[in-house]
Amino acid sequence: MDSLTVTFEGYGIKAPAEAGETILEVAARAGVGIATYCGGHGTCYQCQVVVTAGQVRPKHEAHWQQWPTPDGKGIRVLACQSVVTEDITVKVPIGSRAEEFIVHEMEPLKPNLVDLSRFEPLSPLAQQFVLDLPKPTLEDTVADMQRLRRGLLDEDAELEPITIELPVLRKLPQALRDNDFEVAIAVSDTGLARKITAIRPPAAADSSLGLAIDVGTSTVAVQLVDLDSGEVVGRAIRRNGQIAYGEDVISRIVWTQKGPEQLQNMHRAIIDTLNELFSYLYNEHNAAPDEVIAASIAGNATMINFLLGIDATPIRRTPHTPPATEMPVVTAEQLGLNIHPQGAICVCHPAVSGFVGGDITAGVVATGMHKAEELALLVDVGTNGEIVAGNKDWLMCASCSAGPAFEGVGVEAAMPATAGAVINFDYSRDRDAVDYETIGNQPPRGIAGSGLVEMIASLVEAKVIDRTGNMNADFPSDRLRQSDGELGFTLFEAAETAIGEPIIIYQHDIENLLRSKAAVLAAINVLLGKLDLAETDVEHVYLAGAFGAGLNVDKAVAIGLLPDIPRERIEVVGDTALAGAYLALMSRQAREQAQKTVSAMTYLDLSSDTDFMDEFIASDFIPYTDLSRFPSVDM
Amino acid sequence: MDSLTVTFEGYGIKAPAEAGETILEVAARAGVGIATYCGGHGTCYQCQVVVTAGQVRPKHEAHWQQWPTPDGKGIRVLACQSVVTEDITVKVPIGSRAEEFIVHEMEPLKPNLVDLSRFEPLSPLAQQFVLDLPKPTLEDTVADMQRLRRGLLDEDAELEPITIELPVLRKLPQALRDNDFEVAIAVSDTGLARKITAIRPPAAADSSLGLAIDVGTSTVAVQLVDLDSGEVVGRAIRRNGQIAYGEDVISRIVWTQKGPEQLQNMHRAIIDTLNELFSYLYNEHNAAPDEVIAASIAGNATMINFLLGIDATPIRRTPHTPPATEMPVVTAEQLGLNIHPQGAICVCHPAVSGFVGGDITAGVVATGMHKAEELALLVDVGTNGEIVAGNKDWLMCASCSAGPAFEGVGVEAAMPATAGAVINFDYSRDRDAVDYETIGNQPPRGIAGSGLVEMIASLVEAKVIDRTGNMNADFPSDRLRQSDGELGFTLFEAAETAIGEPIIIYQHDIENLLRSKAAVLAAINVLLGKLDLAETDVEHVYLAGAFGAGLNVDKAVAIGLLPDIPRERIEVVGDTALAGAYLALMSRQAREQAQKTVSAMTYLDLSSDTDFMDEFIASDFIPYTDLSRFPSVDM
Repeated sequence: MDSLTVTFEGYGIKAPAEAGETILEVAARAGVGIATYCGGHGTCYQCQVVVTAGQVRPKHEAHWQQWPTPDGKGIRVLACQSVVTEDITVKVPIGSRAEEFIVHEMEPLKPNLVDLSRFEPLSPLAQQFVLDLPKPTLEDTVADMQRLRRGLLDEDAELEPITIELPVLRKLPQALRDNDFEVAIAVSDTGLARKITAIRPPAAADSSLGLAIDVGTSTVAVQLVDLDSGEVVGRAIRRNGQIAYGEDVISRIVWTQKGPEQLQNMHRAIIDTLNELFSYLYNEHNAAPDEVIAASIAGNATMINFLLGIDATPIRRTPHTPPATEMPVVTAEQLGLNIHPQGAICVCHPAVSGFVGGDITAGVVATGMHKAEELALLVDVGTNGEIVAGNKDWLMCASCSAGPAFEGVGVEAAMPATAGAVINFDYSRDRDAVDYETIGNQPPRGIAGSGLVEMIASLVEAKVIDRTGNMNADFPSDRLRQSDGELGFTLFEAAETAIGEPIIIYQHDIENLLRSKAAVLAAINVLLGKLDLAETDVEHVYLAGAFGAGLNVDKAVAIGLLPDIPRERIEVVGDTALAGAYLALMSRQAREQAQKTVSAMTYLDLSSDTDFMDEFIASDFIPYTDLSRFPSVDM
Repeated sequence: MDSLTVTFEGYGIKAPAEAGETILEVAARAGVGIATYCGGHGTCYQCQVVVTAGQVRPKHEAHWQQWPTPDGKGIRVLACQSVVTEDITVKVPIGSRAEEFIVHEMEPLKPNLVDLSRFEPLSPLAQQFVLDLPKPTLEDTVADMQRLRRGLLDEDAELEPITIELPVLRKLPQALRDNDFEVAIAVSDTGLARKITAIRPPAAADSSLGLAIDVGTSTVAVQLVDLDSGEVVGRAIRRNGQIAYGEDVISRIVWTQKGPEQLQNMHRAIIDTLNELFSYLYNEHNAAPDEVIAASIAGNATMINFLLGIDATPIRRTPHTPPATEMPVVTAEQLGLNIHPQGAICVCHPAVSGFVGGDITAGVVATGMHKAEELALLVDVGTNGEIVAGNKDWLMCASCSAGPAFEGVGVEAAMPATAGAVINFDYSRDRDAVDYETIGNQPPRGIAGSGLVEMIASLVEAKVIDRTGNMNADFPSDRLRQSDGELGFTLFEAAETAIGEPIIIYQHDIENLLRSKAAVLAAINVLLGKLDLAETDVEHVYLAGAFGAGLNVDKAVAIGLLPDIPRERIEVVGDTALAGAYLALMSRQAREQAQKTVSAMTYLDLSSDTDFMDEFIASDFIPYTDLSRFPSVDM
């Protein structure tokens, strides 16, 4: 038998292989984690890899598929369908790396965003009532359901109107009699009415839990919440499993158009992602799925459509109308989410348009800008960038395709803000040394969002890169070297890192990051321009998204991610969508405010705006072409 | 191989059999239709027969079950599980006879009961709107769902609030674009809100149909209705397939307590019954299930619970509280009913108690007694008897277990009011001859409800039976003879009938019929007594139930089914429950009136009432013990 070698690029692994094995089999034996959930049958498309040297053969000629890569280097194939017949080199993209999909603990949200005192008295999306109902007698023969309703209204008269669904009603007679008419009742708030969703023995219902969820294009964040107190029991984040199907919303919509089963795969990928996050939290915090009676979800329009299994194609096509901007309350059972089967799954935040989603209305409610006198700007930098300007009297919003660079997708050296991520970065030209801080003070594994911003600022200041983002080939440091036919600047040598490899920023990474920040700045400038406002009119900037709380706002302005606004007016607020989902989980007022926010908000479509294209080109500099617009930045 | 004989009693069939065959197999070959829907696997319990002579062996020792018969003659077994090893005689009870479950055309309801002019403008349970929506443009980017809502509200502003369920929303984007935004939308009225239930190409939606349904304990009646006009397209009735599990509600509830799969079987039996009725109507009237977008159902509390798959056990146990007196609107899909999967299935009529069901509130609305000045009495004689007294100011009701005798169950010679049923009957002692009328003027097959009443009156008048119901053994006619160890009076000789056998009324049949009428009369008398009213205070009697419109009301009083009330005040109204279901299908007002009727109605529990027992004993005579209470009846 031939003994062949498969080299896994970026892992430092040369794995022995036998002719006839698939790449997936070789990788599994070598400890290279490639994501798959169809078990290697070629149906889930999660295990895409790029073969950069050598050739592979199809496992089944009839099912064979291959795709070009954007940079033209190698071909993209399914690892499970590609048979090794000679020595090959394989690159595993971020969307296919099993370790990228590991669940991590997450930092708490900023307290001012999730301050429930703004919404008292609390009225969670679902509540539990323990009732000791009078047993039926000849004098009191009222029906079981009406008896239950009477008991609930005695607890809280505002629960009317209240309904029950058939699956729950079917359990009612037995549940009442098995527990001697003392039962714990879960009631969810569907907007129009309250609905009885669970009937349990009181002993089995010690706690009632809910989930607040932000389904981001790149990253999904979940909080497990005690619905009685609002206390956050646990937090977890993970990559969105849909990354295998495309890094941004448009490429994912394109993927679902390949065939009807692809929408199903896309739907299943987010459901699986969420269930894995839930399992992690249940294990860590000793909770049972049946205790969880509600989930409040924020996300952009495409993510929410995929979550609900709705075709999002119209969002991609002009004029970009989404299937719905307000979603029905559904049950966990309908989606296959692992909470109580009748638990209410509520997308409490309506979208404004196909490109300004419920994640943004959630963010507005969390910041409170819709209730304030001051003119504020919410800048949410995710895979898409969204901007809202306004105050209690008016709100205007716009979106741009920022790309996932600041979320660490498409930038080799980047990673989410979890243990080992570099969150502060400063390169000293004099010492040719890096000062940095990582989460958990561990050796660096990669660079988080805030680290990326500070890195660019620092490299410009040190003149490693110029104002257009080009690396200075003559820069006097060994860190700058050619690698893979491209200039790269080594941020950390292999010996310093936790991954046994150097962490390098490449020329194309810088370009990706610049385009991301340019899109955001252009959107802000155009929006302010249409409103006839100057940067200095803005009294408060909420900078939300993938940046850690530790981001140096001076640097954010220095690279031109934000306009030149006095720094004390800029507040880095983290995941406002998750904060809004949490508030909506705990308060009907918050849910209603989100509805009202949508009606109050005007959407500015930048996709066909020529000013936006001009501004984008002008913003693809550090910080901007015209330096007079950044008087406080010293270049 | 032995050649054995299986004699099917009452069919005149002696079928050859081989040892080892099951009774079901022998019957099938001999053309004796025995009902089954599990295909002979011993799980559906539909094929119960009574072996009255000889012995059978179990097919599977482990699954063998046998039950005693109420009269102690023979043993009751499953035909599919009983192996023939010797000559046997088999009796096929009504509940197991396939031909009993054949669908029949049904007579129209009385026009005054279903007069829609009382409820104009009409507002059906579901409506269809054909919308030509503006296509999305850059100036009009509103989401698909909001675009649809806007279009619907333009048609009818009162549709707000309006919701959509996930399965329908999932189809929306494609459905709009496939049809160039011209679509037919079905909207159902769930009480709290309107719900979008179907989106179809306008061409596929020529008509929108609904079903009005009366689920009776013995008989199920269905009308197919054009929802736009209210026109009744077709009518059909059939025996309730649940009869195999017991002839009255209590014995059926007892049956479901045998095990959890028995509630499922009970549920499936009514769903199958309904689907067979629907299929008949679809075939006859060239309709497709998808055109049917709503069904309005009336029935007693136990029937409705079984229909929805809810355990009805609490109804049987003191204090007889039903699981619910008001039911949620469910979808056809949830029940497995063969109409549009998202079609609304609405039990529009709340029950008053476990024993006065939505069939009665439906009847009240149909008669209009709840809106009238006059004091009226609704007497609904089904398998249960229910009585409502009152007018626009108050309503009081009671129920009694009448038994299914007048519906033709438990009376050998009886049958439903379909072709060949005797509806008028008069026996002349002088001529020893019967004058009669049948439905369709066909040779008699059996006696319908009205025929049974007139037969008793006539036999008492001719002194074939005395006032206690005993047959006069000395009566001078060959018609009276001993048969099966019991006296029987031959109503029609074999040569006269359509079934090739004589139609005979037996002593025990008369006793069954007498007990039924005694229960009804006793309930009326006790109810009037509690209200301190005399028979003559009653200004209008609605006699509802299994009696045909041709019933001679003089005879109904003569046998003491009704008190001695002036005959012109008595109106025979037929199936008021079906009439109420029809009105509720067509009108929101009718649905709301049913709700209000329940709150207005006081329930009198007769089950523990000693007056009722006394009255029942006094009423078990023809017409009554005390003839002074029936001054107009000449005995």
